[in-house]
Amino acid sequence: MKWKEVCPYNPKLNLRDAYIYDTTLRDGEQTPGVCFTKEQKLNIARKLDELGIKQIEAGFPAVSKKEREIVKCISNEGLNAKILALSRALKDDIDKALNCDVDGIITFIATSPLHLKYKLHKSIDEVEEMGMNAVEYAKDHGLFVAFSAEDATRTPIEDLIRIHKNAEEHGADRVHIADTVGAGTPQSIYYICSELSKNLKKAHIGVHCHNDFGFAVINSIYGLLGGAKAVSTTVNGIGERAGNASLEELVMALMVLYDVDMELNISVIKELSKMVEEYSNMPVPVNKPIVGDRVFYHESGIHVDAVLENPLTYEPFLPEKIGQKREIVLGKHSGCKAVESKLKEMGIEVSRDKLWEIVKKVKETREGGEYIDDKTFKKIVNELLINNRQ
Amino acid sequence: MKWKEVCPYNPKLNLRDAYIYDTTLRDGEQTPGVCFTKEQKLNIARKLDELGIKQIEAGFPAVSKKEREIVKCISNEGLNAKILALSRALKDDIDKALNCDVDGIITFIATSPLHLKYKLHKSIDEVEEMGMNAVEYAKDHGLFVAFSAEDATRTPIEDLIRIHKNAEEHGADRVHIADTVGAGTPQSIYYICSELSKNLKKAHIGVHCHNDFGFAVINSIYGLLGGAKAVSTTVNGIGERAGNASLEELVMALMVLYDVDMELNISVIKELSKMVEEYSNMPVPVNKPIVGDRVFYHESGIHVDAVLENPLTYEPFLPEKIGQKREIVLGKHSGCKAVESKLKEMGIEVSRDKLWEIVKKVKETREGGEYIDDKTFKKIVNELLINNRQ
Repeated sequence: MKWKEVCPYNPKLNLRDAYIYDTTLRDGEQTPGVCFTKEQKLNIARKLDELGIKQIEAGFPAVSKKEREIVKCISNEGLNAKILALSRALKDDIDKALNCDVDGIITFIATSPLHLKYKLHKSIDEVEEMGMNAVEYAKDHGLFVAFSAEDATRTPIEDLIRIHKNAEEHGADRVHIADTVGAGTPQSIYYICSELSKNLKKAHIGVHCHNDFGFAVINSIYGLLGGAKAVSTTVNGIGERAGNASLEELVMALMVLYDVDMELNISVIKELSKMVEEYSNMPVPVNKPIVGDRVFYHESGIHVDAVLENPLTYEPFLPEKIGQKREIVLGKHSGCKAVESKLKEMGIEVSRDKLWEIVKKVKETREGGEYIDDKTFKKIVNELLINNRQ
Repeated sequence: MKWKEVCPYNPKLNLRDAYIYDTTLRDGEQTPGVCFTKEQKLNIARKLDELGIKQIEAGFPAVSKKEREIVKCISNEGLNAKILALSRALKDDIDKALNCDVDGIITFIATSPLHLKYKLHKSIDEVEEMGMNAVEYAKDHGLFVAFSAEDATRTPIEDLIRIHKNAEEHGADRVHIADTVGAGTPQSIYYICSELSKNLKKAHIGVHCHNDFGFAVINSIYGLLGGAKAVSTTVNGIGERAGNASLEELVMALMVLYDVDMELNISVIKELSKMVEEYSNMPVPVNKPIVGDRVFYHESGIHVDAVLENPLTYEPFLPEKIGQKREIVLGKHSGCKAVESKLKEMGIEVSRDKLWEIVKKVKETREGGEYIDDKTFKKIVNELLINNRQ
């Protein structure tokens, strides 16, 4: 039995050639307090490659000498993924990226009235000129070039269209809608991408969404629906402030809910998440969608009964597919079947009455403040079974 | 300067009378491993009331005697919020809720083919009859009644419409679309709610969304767009598996991105989040949208410069509005202005050259593996200033 057969509402999306460019090593590392070592960045890049990610944004060479050393090292690792670096719309930044042997760059400059006025202190014409010079310079040096309009979701549509058409004419391979402060909604990202795609001839669209309101993943999907082809992600959704679109959520939502197959080796997803959790020192909450340690845990009696009969009743996909695992947890909401299944694991069979006694005692014990781990459960069972014999 | 003035794409939604029914104390407590004490449940209920939440689902009386004692206590606390309890579509469950003095119940039964076959082992007609009997019985006892079709997003639309129309005819005040396994997408929830609202005369629609793919909040909003009036939330998004729609994300997204004012006292949001974090023993990740400890932290030089000039450049709203705070963090991405602002706090002025030296040393220190907390920063500054004097 498959998801498609039990879910009547979710259509198959026609998203040919959609791909991910992952920015765990750049925007992910910009999470305040996060700093990867060279070995860590290499390990993450290798694991992303194993997953089958098409492009890896490896860093921001202008940041430091050390950063350049690491990006260069990743470029020369011989991965299948293309290696990109971030650069401002400055010749010097692009030169630094070129020295790192990258396949391409993402060159960005802010275009919103707010950023023009309070950050860049420049006119829209000035930034457009800077952007075009950067695109041209990078193309002249043989790079894949993505031009990114920072704070695009707060930039008037006519400016976005004009600048991105211009970027395309200057040779940009891809143009980005960067939802820099997570200001976008599915509606607005869809609108911007569809207006833009009507106006482009060769360049394709990438979306880079932030998660300030928790919409990074769904906004990215609406970007694809609107005509974008490339989506920016980070592992575990790390990144500036509330982070970026979570790689694992995007991949699984597209696969399960929208029936889009990106031909990825999803079995490494949990492992990749654990790796980035450790290196970033950003604990993944136990209830984080897809990769949280407890999202395939079940306690409530109603749920446990059903999952034991058919996991699809309360699980959107089988956890082992991505290296996750299911567990039955006992507590105040536990019912007979969960307790019976735990007893079975221990090789114990009891009468119906005794089973109810154990269930009652489990609830009371949990309500008394104690967790029902295996040790506590065994204690409860032993006490009640010994009483029985008396 | 206001958000609306800087963001050209997000429209004002016409969502009159939209309200929240919070289920932190019921679905939130069903998070495997979570169990609130009476005092904790009371404190959370009081704080939800202070926030201005209209309805609080206080518990599931059938679970245990202790649970009934707590729900009764919350009912008699004299809160402005209406107190609801969950019950299966069983007379005995409703009697137990009645004994807790609640204002209303949410009575549920699964309607999807999958749940009918593998969980309930009943036909759709049988569950419909059970549901209607429950609605009628509860209405006869003067309760506000919400009828909830569990796993609605995997139930054929014709069944949903027929059963919910029937529930309305039996007196249900509200009917729920429960997206029990987070199978919904914005499109599907919108579709279901709009089809349903065309077919209802008096009852209004509530949406109860799960977060298995991270879409609980946006799906809830698309429910409202489709014609729902009530939205289910939990504080910090706790709940079964990956949880429910986060109260704080829903409220702030509606307010900032969709210009919907629910007349809530949002200044208590961070405090409420901290309270539930402590009581549930479910740590809120530092990068959780809205309430994470670090979502208003800035490290990257580009961002810090701009935020110091105008916070709206990189913040969707002022953190103090919800009891949050901004912080400038130093690290490998730091630039001059961030360091200058830290020095200013310490009452120190330095030359341009010296400032660059400090910035360089900060980056190197962080890349060497050390965090740049205030102590480390002072050490760096002292060393470089003393060297200067030599």
